[in-house]
Amino acid sequence: MPSPRFNRKYQDGQSIDWITEDAVERERNYAHRAQKSIRGLLSRWADSARIWTVIILTGMGIGTIGAWLDVLVKWLGDLREGVCSHGFFYNQVTCCSGVDPGEVCTNWQTWGEHFDIRFIFVESLMQSFIYILLGLIFAGSAAVLVTTYAPYAFHTGIPEIKAILGGYVLDAFLTPWTLLIKALGLALAVASGLSLGKEGPLVHVACCMAFSLSRLFKQFQHSEGQRRKLLAASAAAGISVAFGSPLGGVIFCLEELDTFASDAEVLWRGFVASAVAAVSLQYVDPFGTSKLVLFQVTNGSDTWRAFELIPWLGLGVIGGVLGSILIKLNVEAAIVRRTSVLNDWPILEVIGVSSITAAISYLIVFTRVQSSELVANLFQECDPSKGDYHGLCNPAAVWGNVFLLILTAIIKIGLTAWTFGMMIPAGIFLPTITIGACLGRAMGILTQSLQTSYPGAWLFLSCPPDPSVRCVSPGFYAVMGAAAMLAGVTRMTSEYSFNGSTLVLITFQLTGALSHVLPIMISVMTAKWVGDALGKDGIYSVWIAMRQYPWLPPVDYHDKGETAADVMRTAQHLTVIDEGELALNDLDGLLRDHAFHGFPVVKERELVGYVTRAKLRVIVDSFAADEMHKKCCFSNKNGTFNDDHVNLSSTLENSVIQLRKDVPLELVVRVFQKMNLRQILFTDAGKLVGMVTKTDVVALMTAHFTHTAALR
Amino acid sequence: MPSPRFNRKYQDGQSIDWITEDAVERERNYAHRAQKSIRGLLSRWADSARIWTVIILTGMGIGTIGAWLDVLVKWLGDLREGVCSHGFFYNQVTCCSGVDPGEVCTNWQTWGEHFDIRFIFVESLMQSFIYILLGLIFAGSAAVLVTTYAPYAFHTGIPEIKAILGGYVLDAFLTPWTLLIKALGLALAVASGLSLGKEGPLVHVACCMAFSLSRLFKQFQHSEGQRRKLLAASAAAGISVAFGSPLGGVIFCLEELDTFASDAEVLWRGFVASAVAAVSLQYVDPFGTSKLVLFQVTNGSDTWRAFELIPWLGLGVIGGVLGSILIKLNVEAAIVRRTSVLNDWPILEVIGVSSITAAISYLIVFTRVQSSELVANLFQECDPSKGDYHGLCNPAAVWGNVFLLILTAIIKIGLTAWTFGMMIPAGIFLPTITIGACLGRAMGILTQSLQTSYPGAWLFLSCPPDPSVRCVSPGFYAVMGAAAMLAGVTRMTSEYSFNGSTLVLITFQLTGALSHVLPIMISVMTAKWVGDALGKDGIYSVWIAMRQYPWLPPVDYHDKGETAADVMRTAQHLTVIDEGELALNDLDGLLRDHAFHGFPVVKERELVGYVTRAKLRVIVDSFAADEMHKKCCFSNKNGTFNDDHVNLSSTLENSVIQLRKDVPLELVVRVFQKMNLRQILFTDAGKLVGMVTKTDVVALMTAHFTHTAALR
Repeated sequence: MPSPRFNRKYQDGQSIDWITEDAVERERNYAHRAQKSIRGLLSRWADSARIWTVIILTGMGIGTIGAWLDVLVKWLGDLREGVCSHGFFYNQVTCCSGVDPGEVCTNWQTWGEHFDIRFIFVESLMQSFIYILLGLIFAGSAAVLVTTYAPYAFHTGIPEIKAILGGYVLDAFLTPWTLLIKALGLALAVASGLSLGKEGPLVHVACCMAFSLSRLFKQFQHSEGQRRKLLAASAAAGISVAFGSPLGGVIFCLEELDTFASDAEVLWRGFVASAVAAVSLQYVDPFGTSKLVLFQVTNGSDTWRAFELIPWLGLGVIGGVLGSILIKLNVEAAIVRRTSVLNDWPILEVIGVSSITAAISYLIVFTRVQSSELVANLFQECDPSKGDYHGLCNPAAVWGNVFLLILTAIIKIGLTAWTFGMMIPAGIFLPTITIGACLGRAMGILTQSLQTSYPGAWLFLSCPPDPSVRCVSPGFYAVMGAAAMLAGVTRMTSEYSFNGSTLVLITFQLTGALSHVLPIMISVMTAKWVGDALGKDGIYSVWIAMRQYPWLPPVDYHDKGETAADVMRTAQHLTVIDEGELALNDLDGLLRDHAFHGFPVVKERELVGYVTRAKLRVIVDSFAADEMHKKCCFSNKNGTFNDDHVNLSSTLENSVIQLRKDVPLELVVRVFQKMNLRQILFTDAGKLVGMVTKTDVVALMTAHFTHTAALR
Repeated sequence: MPSPRFNRKYQDGQSIDWITEDAVERERNYAHRAQKSIRGLLSRWADSARIWTVIILTGMGIGTIGAWLDVLVKWLGDLREGVCSHGFFYNQVTCCSGVDPGEVCTNWQTWGEHFDIRFIFVESLMQSFIYILLGLIFAGSAAVLVTTYAPYAFHTGIPEIKAILGGYVLDAFLTPWTLLIKALGLALAVASGLSLGKEGPLVHVACCMAFSLSRLFKQFQHSEGQRRKLLAASAAAGISVAFGSPLGGVIFCLEELDTFASDAEVLWRGFVASAVAAVSLQYVDPFGTSKLVLFQVTNGSDTWRAFELIPWLGLGVIGGVLGSILIKLNVEAAIVRRTSVLNDWPILEVIGVSSITAAISYLIVFTRVQSSELVANLFQECDPSKGDYHGLCNPAAVWGNVFLLILTAIIKIGLTAWTFGMMIPAGIFLPTITIGACLGRAMGILTQSLQTSYPGAWLFLSCPPDPSVRCVSPGFYAVMGAAAMLAGVTRMTSEYSFNGSTLVLITFQLTGALSHVLPIMISVMTAKWVGDALGKDGIYSVWIAMRQYPWLPPVDYHDKGETAADVMRTAQHLTVIDEGELALNDLDGLLRDHAFHGFPVVKERELVGYVTRAKLRVIVDSFAADEMHKKCCFSNKNGTFNDDHVNLSSTLENSVIQLRKDVPLELVVRVFQKMNLRQILFTDAGKLVGMVTKTDVVALMTAHFTHTAALR
């Protein structure tokens, strides 16, 4: 009988035992139900109230942080270009908020104006100098903060969160310090203009918040299972804020459902957390727009023509290929960073990359602005009444625009591959869709100019004959390209079979392109197909494998005829407890000599059960020294119980799964994936023949990847 | 080693053995891979090509059927009100297609005009008589078709499809006859004006189509597993067409994923099937609108105010309560129908209900039109430039409208409760959202009139001060009501934990109300909460329980401290094969005496393995008569193999899961749910102590429902 008296404190780096965790939670529920009085009811309510408190506070917190992060980033970003004469703490929008439309805002001054420099050349030199310098300072401060105070605040955080939700213990990853540094560092990193996004890190921040809040209550201290359910809900809240999509948060919870025993409960909490976070974000409403979604395309045409499938399939192929290339480059960059001298100078590396980024970005018009602004503009259709964004709509500059867009995409691929993994908070979502949107827009502009040049061609006969009516919508091509690139980088099958839907859904909600879901689906499908042909793993899987977290990817595994017997550690090589043979002090020695999580118990090679190290430790310690010579019995099989034996049958685990050794390997993997086990014992006609652990299965699943454990 | 030589033909009413089916498919893959020559490659391609052929043909087929069904229903529906002077086979739209906007269409004549009746009274009598008569004829013909040719074509079909996807065998449900009758009967039933929808039955039609196509290929004849994967994909295509939402189809596949071994494969096929079906529907494009979605609200305002949460929460509560009432009424109706004289007169029943429906419907303006038209109009905001739908926007008729809308909802609840279960094809989706939309609109009109009457009240201060600007959008309240009602009737947790998301998603895509996802989520959550408090099961679960299909609802089960030992059939009550004791002719007798699916094999009470009836049958039959006295051995445990024994060890199942009898019941249920097993064996230190089968678990899960097996 598992009970709280068994010490279940885990160390960082261990994996929790889900079956035990579930059992503890069940015990707790039984205990509550057994108390028939008001007190039992109250303690159940209190349990539930604490959970909801953490969830709602996390939702409100991450909504607020998300909102203020936007404000901070906007201000820091604007500061790189100029300053408000009313006070340096105003951003450009608030600085000019009192000005009538049409009037020139004189309060906002570029740095050149501010220092009253008259010479154009000096002014532009000054301008670019401050632009680059501030970028360096922001990026450098972020790197200093991360390396000094919270090394776990680097990177996106998603791989770790996946591993933690799966049962990995990494408390250092979720401290309040990490929360603070990640949020602050994220604002600095984004404002520095490096090629990174805020989406993944925001999810990490939400998880830190839930974890820190959960430490206030004793209830969660002894239940890693309950804690993980809280983390799942708060990750949903993070996604809800990062993408402005409460539905996206819920779907993320669905992805993680296999891990948890109580599906509906987790989903329901994720639902509430996402909703609360979205409402908080909307309530704080930093830009006064009261719109949740990040990018919105509303003026695209409602219909699409069959010939457009050709460029869209092309975008799918490009997304798949470039996604694979980006993943490969990123892995190479991570390995070079780890094995070279750069490993010792993380801050200098960040400053170096940031100066290169800033210098290049300042030269090209599309890279100078913040990525989110660029994407929003690329998603917009040309509308003469709204003005032309950097000449994108100029029909005379087709080739120039296409060249610039492709150049931007190539530069971004290189920069992103290096940036994603440096010692700063950095998400990969925004850079990915920026690359995709550039390529998509380029494709759209090309298709449009082809159509307007040859309106009578057979292909374009389905277009309206009136040349003033737009037939091809390049803005939508940008959406398409972004979706395809995202599919190529995060890859549906590798992450989870229905990351794909999340992807389509998020893209869809990001853009509001309701009538165009179908083409997006087709393009995403193509990208996935092409990408899978070039390598099965998405970017997060690759990072999990490189850091060797014990995480089972929920992908299909197909054996080639192997059975469990081919991978299991056979009984001869297992450390087992032989019932009736070992005395208590032998057990004590066993526990000292071996660090295993548990031991199978056998009697004359026949399997009796499985006992965990933790329970054994407690039981052995509970006996007096003069009893230590007594033999241990776990079952009363041959009626051998007598005064020379101690009965340890209560320590046996109830929930041990046994299979035959001839079972196909495929099925073994599936049992591990679906039931979230730590080990399976294999028997043949009652005799123990072997054991397979989660670690064995993880090794099996990552065997094809050459850089496994490269960043361990 | 399972191989195709074992007869795995299932009879209707049996459940398939997933583990065996998976094993067969694995064998097939091994065999293909083993053939290294071109031939092996070709046969793999051919396998895959056959699957894709069925999927793509099904997608195209269901898209086309869906499109033509709309045309047929429109024509039959119009025929009840009038006729085209050019020919009776035109519907109103095509009849008047040549007429300029503004001009009166004289080609389309009401029946009164057609027969040239001058007296208003006679004309309106004539009009209503034909309206009711044609309704009777349509409904009656549908009932005659169903009862005579394909009894399985009645009802929605969703409960059966869920059971079949879970492993139930019901080939009669998927014949080409059923396909034809269901499609034809559906058109007649919808046109008859009965309170039913076409969504569920369309999914059934799609499954019939895939099943019929699969029978053309030998590949699927021996693999019920492969067949079910095809059915899952085609069900997705059906949903894609029924709701105009390819994404909805994919999410349906996700719901069913737990059933299948190869998640990504099934999802991918569902993806393609949904996309092909949607493209086909759009290509055929019956109404020339080239829009996929059924209902679209685009002119609602972008923002909402906090005070609106009060009526919306109210709608959630109403949806939960009325949803529960509708389910209870429907169950009562089904039981009365089965136990009373009505059981013998199904056609008369349909005609009777249809005449009552037609008579009532003709009297009330909102019930006379087709439900889909009513819903589309209820979802529309009032717009002076677009005309007023039946006075809904008249501010002077608030109370009249509210009364009429509530009356309509009440009538629809009664009619739907009775109609859903009669011998005609009938879905429950459309009636449910109609009821919800009526109530929602009523709530919206009330809130709006309250706000316009007291614009200065504290609650309404967040509204714009200008009275000409609309603050409350009653059309969106209708969407909200529909979503809440749907949640109350189908209930998220009962169907599947994330039916909820499907629901929000479909509602969301149906209406395009992008900025309002959050309030819809809140309202759906409330409806689920309230509904669950009044009864845990959704409408489909209830029907599955009443017809006692062996289907495991994927809901959380919480035991009260019971273990497997409390529900298992103990070893003393099991029919087991005692190794070394039984001769071959004893086995023969065993197979004759018992109809069990398989038998555990023991030796001196110790578990040796599990053997299925089918394999045993084949093995026993393969021996000559003079060998029948030989003893059977399944293991060579004590080295007892000799000439007096036959070695049957190859018949043992490889994939048998063993657990300890002390395992909590909760975990047993979870293993069944996640691994889709037929049985689990329980052992204690190697000895067989009991067995639990899927049937036991289903009985456990439906124990709380009083009408289990009422319609068996």
